[in-house]
Amino acid sequence: MSFDYKIADISLHEAGRHQIRLAEHEMPGLMALREEYAEELPLAGARIAGSLHMTVQTAVLIETLTALGAEVRWASCNIFSTQDEAAAAVVVGPNGTPEDPQGVPVFAWKNETLEEYWWTATQIFAWPGVDQDPSKGANMILDDGGDATLLVHKGVAFEAAGAVPSATDEDPEEYRIILQTLRDSLAENPQRWTGIAGELKGVTEETTTGVNRLYQLARDERLLFPAINVNDSVTKSKFDNKYGIRHSLPDGIMRATDVLLGGKTAVVCGYGDVGKGTAEALRGQGARVVVTEIDPINALQAAMDGFQVATLDDVVEEGHIFITSTGGKDIISAEQMSRMRDKAIVGNVGHFDNEIDMAGLEKTPGIQKIEIKPQVHEWVFENGKSIIVLSEGRLLNLGNATGHPSFVMSSSFANQTIAQIELFAKSHKSGHSGHDTYQNQVYTLPKVLDEKVARLHLDALGARLSELTKEQADYLGVDVAGPYKPDHYRY
Amino acid sequence: MSFDYKIADISLHEAGRHQIRLAEHEMPGLMALREEYAEELPLAGARIAGSLHMTVQTAVLIETLTALGAEVRWASCNIFSTQDEAAAAVVVGPNGTPEDPQGVPVFAWKNETLEEYWWTATQIFAWPGVDQDPSKGANMILDDGGDATLLVHKGVAFEAAGAVPSATDEDPEEYRIILQTLRDSLAENPQRWTGIAGELKGVTEETTTGVNRLYQLARDERLLFPAINVNDSVTKSKFDNKYGIRHSLPDGIMRATDVLLGGKTAVVCGYGDVGKGTAEALRGQGARVVVTEIDPINALQAAMDGFQVATLDDVVEEGHIFITSTGGKDIISAEQMSRMRDKAIVGNVGHFDNEIDMAGLEKTPGIQKIEIKPQVHEWVFENGKSIIVLSEGRLLNLGNATGHPSFVMSSSFANQTIAQIELFAKSHKSGHSGHDTYQNQVYTLPKVLDEKVARLHLDALGARLSELTKEQADYLGVDVAGPYKPDHYRY
Amino acid sequence: MSFDYKIADISLHEAGRHQIRLAEHEMPGLMALREEYAEELPLAGARIAGSLHMTVQTAVLIETLTALGAEVRWASCNIFSTQDEAAAAVVVGPNGTPEDPQGVPVFAWKNETLEEYWWTATQIFAWPGVDQDPSKGANMILDDGGDATLLVHKGVAFEAAGAVPSATDEDPEEYRIILQTLRDSLAENPQRWTGIAGELKGVTEETTTGVNRLYQLARDERLLFPAINVNDSVTKSKFDNKYGIRHSLPDGIMRATDVLLGGKTAVVCGYGDVGKGTAEALRGQGARVVVTEIDPINALQAAMDGFQVATLDDVVEEGHIFITSTGGKDIISAEQMSRMRDKAIVGNVGHFDNEIDMAGLEKTPGIQKIEIKPQVHEWVFENGKSIIVLSEGRLLNLGNATGHPSFVMSSSFANQTIAQIELFAKSHKSGHSGHDTYQNQVYTLPKVLDEKVARLHLDALGARLSELTKEQADYLGVDVAGPYKPDHYRY
Amino acid sequence: MSFDYKIADISLHEAGRHQIRLAEHEMPGLMALREEYAEELPLAGARIAGSLHMTVQTAVLIETLTALGAEVRWASCNIFSTQDEAAAAVVVGPNGTPEDPQGVPVFAWKNETLEEYWWTATQIFAWPGVDQDPSKGANMILDDGGDATLLVHKGVAFEAAGAVPSATDEDPEEYRIILQTLRDSLAENPQRWTGIAGELKGVTEETTTGVNRLYQLARDERLLFPAINVNDSVTKSKFDNKYGIRHSLPDGIMRATDVLLGGKTAVVCGYGDVGKGTAEALRGQGARVVVTEIDPINALQAAMDGFQVATLDDVVEEGHIFITSTGGKDIISAEQMSRMRDKAIVGNVGHFDNEIDMAGLEKTPGIQKIEIKPQVHEWVFENGKSIIVLSEGRLLNLGNATGHPSFVMSSSFANQTIAQIELFAKSHKSGHSGHDTYQNQVYTLPKVLDEKVARLHLDALGARLSELTKEQADYLGVDVAGPYKPDHYRY
Repeated sequence: MSFDYKIADISLHEAGRHQIRLAEHEMPGLMALREEYAEELPLAGARIAGSLHMTVQTAVLIETLTALGAEVRWASCNIFSTQDEAAAAVVVGPNGTPEDPQGVPVFAWKNETLEEYWWTATQIFAWPGVDQDPSKGANMILDDGGDATLLVHKGVAFEAAGAVPSATDEDPEEYRIILQTLRDSLAENPQRWTGIAGELKGVTEETTTGVNRLYQLARDERLLFPAINVNDSVTKSKFDNKYGIRHSLPDGIMRATDVLLGGKTAVVCGYGDVGKGTAEALRGQGARVVVTEIDPINALQAAMDGFQVATLDDVVEEGHIFITSTGGKDIISAEQMSRMRDKAIVGNVGHFDNEIDMAGLEKTPGIQKIEIKPQVHEWVFENGKSIIVLSEGRLLNLGNATGHPSFVMSSSFANQTIAQIELFAKSHKSGHSGHDTYQNQVYTLPKVLDEKVARLHLDALGARLSELTKEQADYLGVDVAGPYKPDHYRY
Repeated sequence: MSFDYKIADISLHEAGRHQIRLAEHEMPGLMALREEYAEELPLAGARIAGSLHMTVQTAVLIETLTALGAEVRWASCNIFSTQDEAAAAVVVGPNGTPEDPQGVPVFAWKNETLEEYWWTATQIFAWPGVDQDPSKGANMILDDGGDATLLVHKGVAFEAAGAVPSATDEDPEEYRIILQTLRDSLAENPQRWTGIAGELKGVTEETTTGVNRLYQLARDERLLFPAINVNDSVTKSKFDNKYGIRHSLPDGIMRATDVLLGGKTAVVCGYGDVGKGTAEALRGQGARVVVTEIDPINALQAAMDGFQVATLDDVVEEGHIFITSTGGKDIISAEQMSRMRDKAIVGNVGHFDNEIDMAGLEKTPGIQKIEIKPQVHEWVFENGKSIIVLSEGRLLNLGNATGHPSFVMSSSFANQTIAQIELFAKSHKSGHSGHDTYQNQVYTLPKVLDEKVARLHLDALGARLSELTKEQADYLGVDVAGPYKPDHYRY
Repeated sequence: MSFDYKIADISLHEAGRHQIRLAEHEMPGLMALREEYAEELPLAGARIAGSLHMTVQTAVLIETLTALGAEVRWASCNIFSTQDEAAAAVVVGPNGTPEDPQGVPVFAWKNETLEEYWWTATQIFAWPGVDQDPSKGANMILDDGGDATLLVHKGVAFEAAGAVPSATDEDPEEYRIILQTLRDSLAENPQRWTGIAGELKGVTEETTTGVNRLYQLARDERLLFPAINVNDSVTKSKFDNKYGIRHSLPDGIMRATDVLLGGKTAVVCGYGDVGKGTAEALRGQGARVVVTEIDPINALQAAMDGFQVATLDDVVEEGHIFITSTGGKDIISAEQMSRMRDKAIVGNVGHFDNEIDMAGLEKTPGIQKIEIKPQVHEWVFENGKSIIVLSEGRLLNLGNATGHPSFVMSSSFANQTIAQIELFAKSHKSGHSGHDTYQNQVYTLPKVLDEKVARLHLDALGARLSELTKEQADYLGVDVAGPYKPDHYRY
Repeated sequence: MSFDYKIADISLHEAGRHQIRLAEHEMPGLMALREEYAEELPLAGARIAGSLHMTVQTAVLIETLTALGAEVRWASCNIFSTQDEAAAAVVVGPNGTPEDPQGVPVFAWKNETLEEYWWTATQIFAWPGVDQDPSKGANMILDDGGDATLLVHKGVAFEAAGAVPSATDEDPEEYRIILQTLRDSLAENPQRWTGIAGELKGVTEETTTGVNRLYQLARDERLLFPAINVNDSVTKSKFDNKYGIRHSLPDGIMRATDVLLGGKTAVVCGYGDVGKGTAEALRGQGARVVVTEIDPINALQAAMDGFQVATLDDVVEEGHIFITSTGGKDIISAEQMSRMRDKAIVGNVGHFDNEIDMAGLEKTPGIQKIEIKPQVHEWVFENGKSIIVLSEGRLLNLGNATGHPSFVMSSSFANQTIAQIELFAKSHKSGHSGHDTYQNQVYTLPKVLDEKVARLHLDALGARLSELTKEQADYLGVDVAGPYKPDHYRY
């Protein structure tokens, strides 16, 4: 074996390669970066531990990172989201064969157990020889949701304490598994994560949840390396979250249920960027959309956009479709699900599966769970009425469809790539000492790089940008080349 | 074998039965008819030859027809559209087993050859003993696209002529197969179709194309039995064509390509009901939509709805997505396809696959066809640019998705069922002689029945209808119970 | 005086002429007809009695009719709708002066009393010398709402009876005035209307209400001359009713109240063409729209378009804006108005002012009416809460704004003009005896003329029509030049 | 005279009072603040110099400020925008009479000259006795566009220099007038503005332009007092700019031209918040919208929202309507206007009238300007083609309609009021010395106050807000009472 990896079936690589080729066409941002940096190879020397849904689009990201000079190891950040053919193609690489894979080590397959999932998370840090010499390990993390970052931080903390604590009764099941994973690690090598952390120049993170964790670590002065918050680039948050969901939300419901969206009453919980995309998609399909919100500004936006704003209890018996998109928890309770219409559809496009109280649903006396097809379950209550839950309450656009489309991911991933380049070059751990040096804090990308990402995508859409004259730019007090807006501008 | 059938795999029946159960919930029109006519059984004695996409929704239709007393034989009206699990479930029936099927004879499977297709068309007329005694055969046709009706009319004509003509060079390939099918039939039984036609009380037809053929036959005084044009019930044409496509068009493109629709330029050829649904769906996904039209009224509607109206040549190099929805032919030529953007997506939701010049495409010198996945093909031109053609130019919403959703089909199929009841009872061939008797002409359903179909679907959506007072009704000159509009009203 | 007329102020003619010049630009249909028929003068010899809102757009219609050779006399069909400067400009004519008016006799001013209104209706038939010689009178009616037609039919009936009956207690106030008008006429000339009716070759009528009256007369075999129902040309009903209202409804509310539409709950009573335009306009402004309907088909359309469908009582306390667009009566009762939110806005864009129970409102104990400005009244209930009623319950788009925009009226009026040409040439009273002859029935325009009207408007919008090849037309069974659709097609 | 003022006609006060009463109902934010602070009177002692469009809505703001204890003097910030009846009502006050006005001194009337305009600007600082004792003068500025702030800063600078410079050839005409105004002032009192500035605790400013000036002053360390940037409160920028324009833009075009928006091609220059509202409004009316942009992020947003993105030259011959909304200058040149379609409509909703090159237009050889009606001019080119320019290139929503509706202004003005309270209490010039003290910098309102403004408006819309449980808030790491989002959140 030329290198280690663990995937479902390497023979799927050809199908994956086909899809990658088509996806490349839809990812003009990444392809433009490959072209721009073909000579310079700004990621030469970078060893990136990547934790992000192992899809066809991610394959294009991975091969962009390697085209820019990086070495990479990869795991998925979700037990369901791996597209097995993409993983196979990445392992084999464009020029390899299943017998002689020349791509990148990947540890991911569709439908992992939680134990397997956390094992794959350790594998992206298991660079050959790293236990003996941490400088052979990863020096960058590319993260989605923060699990890779969490593992390092917890590992370092437990190694400092010399022991891994026991899980308490209140800890979620998943946390027990994390603790066991680190307990095993501690037994094998009591300084593993401390060594790894010492080498890491930084992390780039693209989810709200992961970013929140980073800000908390930074606030507590426990962040071990610089971080770039890619999530809050405009070309990420306003594009991935809003326009990506607008596509993949109806896609997921349609594939899962084939139920007509037109004429139905859809309740969208949360009117942030994801909720806005959800509401727009459902209205575009002729559904009547009702929004629930806790933030008065977002609630007022929903009202001004023409949506009824109500509490969930106001409409729980009226809705045909319920989508959570809050980032919070316990948004829909089991009791509320029991009051819904027969065959109401319930799904989540927020971050974690605890937006819908799946645990409570499972414990409902007399309830029966029928698998209609993978990721589509009918939960039949004692009274004979049932509801349809998508993807077990996890992200339905990933579980029931194929996630965000390539074009949207091109925007998010161009941000990731540019952020990796920035941090790899300018982290204070890179020996850099200019006033640009990134410290152990959380940063967002400079606006002009955000604008660059947008610029890379316009041509492919046939959009023609106007240009400021020098005189107009002076009048506005900006540079002809941007950035064009003050930092507080909201788009 | 309790009865004859030919399907892909009878073991799929359980999966099909699950889906049928869920579909029933989304087909309130059909379920309401089952309830309304549970005692009366208005189709007792009807022997229906059905030719309509053999999907899960059609399964609910078939079982509604049998619940109303009919005997049924079924084929699909499209070589790609059969859902094999639905066919299996219908054959087995709700109470049968694969070993002892108690449902309905079905002749349909996904991906038939054209020869197989026309053989299945003959089988829905091959009732046991019919060759010996035509009165044992079908007495009703339920048609979609008119192929079953065509077969009978051609059969009768050739039997009258005593011979089946040879195909000419200009005849499409498919016509040769039809001729051969009837040539074989003539050899077996020179009066088969004449006998069958003599027993048929009528046909109900639900497509624009099929209806046009019927009007031509009626105009030429060659129609052999009464016909009800279900296509032009408001609750069919304005619902199936418009709202059904609004759902299934993006569903098909998304499943086929995973390409982001937002920001793309989509060219919609034809702004009839299907085109209107297509344009609305694409705009709802954030695409820029350009419409082409030959009818100035529809063109003006498109303009008033805010769409750019152009000729195909105006925008053929600009579009990312091209959808035909005209019912005409040669809408997109091979030459035009060769001028499109690299990886442009081309698909059809009109009626026949000749809206896109697939034959011309195939003959393009140096062209190469790559199957991305079933029903999704990349056609690579000599210069390296390629386009993606969906479902080989046939209906993409059927080929790449699962067709219209159940709720929409409930409306169309409630019209079909009500039309079957009408015609079976009141065809002049039913011995009926009142002034309602249907002659060998094409009829539309009385408006009050059209309104009835709508009424059957409101509750399920939570829509609450207002009621006229007697005084208000008198003022309007209508009956409190409807119909409410003059016949020429356009909705 | 070169001719008789009665208008508000002839000195307004210059302002009117300016507006007419601008309106001509927005009425490409009428201008194209002037050009097409400049030589032929198909209306030479026509003497048209016109009863239609005396607006700037109507001025362009009138001057088109005269450009085609007609003589014309005009009154408004609504007591509030006259634009005084338009009336003045039409009277003066493009080449006349206030001292030497050379235009057309007009009898209309803003804010007529009902007595004045019915007097103006008599004046369009008062051609010089007609009492002596009916052949000097009108030979065509161009009607909107049917009042001119009603006057002739009632006049003839009462002359036949030799007396005008007394109004009963149940007759509306307006009917008393009509009776008195005709009683006076009978005293002056007992055969006036009989004489006039004998000369009339026909009427063209453009409203639903007027057309309904005509169909009733035809059904009762009491129609005295042929009629063309212009209202049901697609380019009238689907354009004027829907797209016209989409513009003029928000225009009227905005001018009247300056109240933000975004975020408000708007209740639209009736989802016909007018209701569809209303709902689309309000949604386009960010209002949440709730629809009430009595017709299950229209109700289902509203639901499929994403609107909540409820009864008025369901939402009467919730709505901020209530618009009636039904054509029926007693849609909103005084009792319901008393239950509305403080400062709720109530308006009508249906036909008559009895959609809103203004009489009941006026009789509410303790109610107080405050004029905010002309056509905007606050009705204060005893409990201090108030509602805002627009245009006294009459058409708010006319009373509070300037009615439909010119472009929409160009479409309606091109239909009127073409219908006048048709009927003037081919009425059975024209001595015509071909198989096209129009009898004393109600007709719609041939579809190809409807398409012609659409065609005349495309260029001005920059819409580029595609053309059928002969082969494509044959395939569809239509002529290359149209008509393209079967008569029952709904658009 | 109880106090000094200069307005058009005090007899208009009754009409104004009616309108104020209705506007109060639509300004729930301001009315809630009156109620909340009825006892506390947080603005007691504040003397506010206000410069903001003197409309009915501003009247409600002024009377809110006085209800909270302030003394106020007012001028408009635009020569066209005063509603004379509002000015009259504010002067008279709710309890005064024209003979005994008890309201607030106002210096504003519709259609001021530029000289008059700058005179009114001086009057809001001309508190009785101020020249003798600056502490009797204004201690707060409430500004819109920054003219009042500019006057003070220029005045102080020239007084320091001891002379007012002459205007150069390149200075715009308006600057000459400002200089002359200050030259006259210097002659009268050489320390007037220095005295005034010394007393000012701060300014609250609500426009992008005004805010940009403030940031420049702060950057150059020349800002003379603290400033709160009200413009960038979410409930201002996203509401006033976007939802306000969505209403008032079509309102302005409709009132000005009565031209059908449906079917027309509208070119929107700039896709910031104002452009977004413009584009949404025009699409909602059925126009085809094309967007021009210089910022790639906004351009990508426009594309993703389904709009064609082009340069102005790409579509200048195609558009029917052109709207500038950039905040920049020279967006539409005279040469481009000469290439537009006959009767194209050109208008501006950006900030200054230099977005459209009116000066260049005027200088076009052979051009002729015809006033269609006030604020609507036809400019006829030598070749006979013409364009329609609204409001002379100034803000059309103010010039051709009545500006933003009350509800939107309630949101903006609630921000203004809260900002006045903040600054009056906590300016470092207020003697306050806590860590909240505002220095001579530009601040935005704390997010929780922004959320408060939103909250004050939800009830009036019938929107029902959900509430976080303590547990949910902890999970999100926020307080149950807010603020809910990080500062960089974009909404």
